[in-house]
Amino acid sequence: MNNPIQALNKLFDSRVRLGIMSALMVNSHVNFNSLKELLDITDGNLASHLKALEEHQIIKVEKGFIGKKTNTTYTLTKLGEKQFKAHIAALEAMIKATK
Amino acid sequence: MNNPIQALNKLFDSRVRLGIMSALMVNSHVNFNSLKELLDITDGNLASHLKALEEHQIIKVEKGFIGKKTNTTYTLTKLGEKQFKAHIAALEAMIKATK
Repeated sequence: MNNPIQALNKLFDSRVRLGIMSALMVNSHVNFNSLKELLDITDGNLASHLKALEEHQIIKVEKGFIGKKTNTTYTLTKLGEKQFKAHIAALEAMIKATK
Repeated sequence: MNNPIQALNKLFDSRVRLGIMSALMVNSHVNFNSLKELLDITDGNLASHLKALEEHQIIKVEKGFIGKKTNTTYTLTKLGEKQFKAHIAALEAMIKATK
């Protein structure tokens, strides 16, 4: 048996990050509140994961306004998309090996 | 979009745990050193994850000897197998939703 976790990316090593990335894979832009509602987690929990992903250039943050209210949206970077697709392929290979 | 991480099990929220469970899904018994070599991690890292999985009745620990040397082996419990299969199904659904 090969090392089943060698190709898995530590950056995506939590459900919250998997959830953020999944949402951004199918939506070009997602704002903070939509992510928070979708994943059913606290502001602080979401913010800490988004910060880490941004620091690793996996996502981009765009700050704007809707009327007077700030509206922060997130998008995947090319690097982020590439790395998450590789992570998913590694997850699929690991899953396949367990069947 | 439904919450992509709702059905994911927090117990399996790390690559090391995914690796341990994958190995135990395809080998009825695996000993500590084989797991450590397979996953290429430190004794302490492996031991802490195994302890948590044991505490949640996901795996069973059997302590034996080979000659004078202790030989600790791990097996999946019925509960562990059931919960990991559900986690894998949830991962597959999440992956499918990103395509």
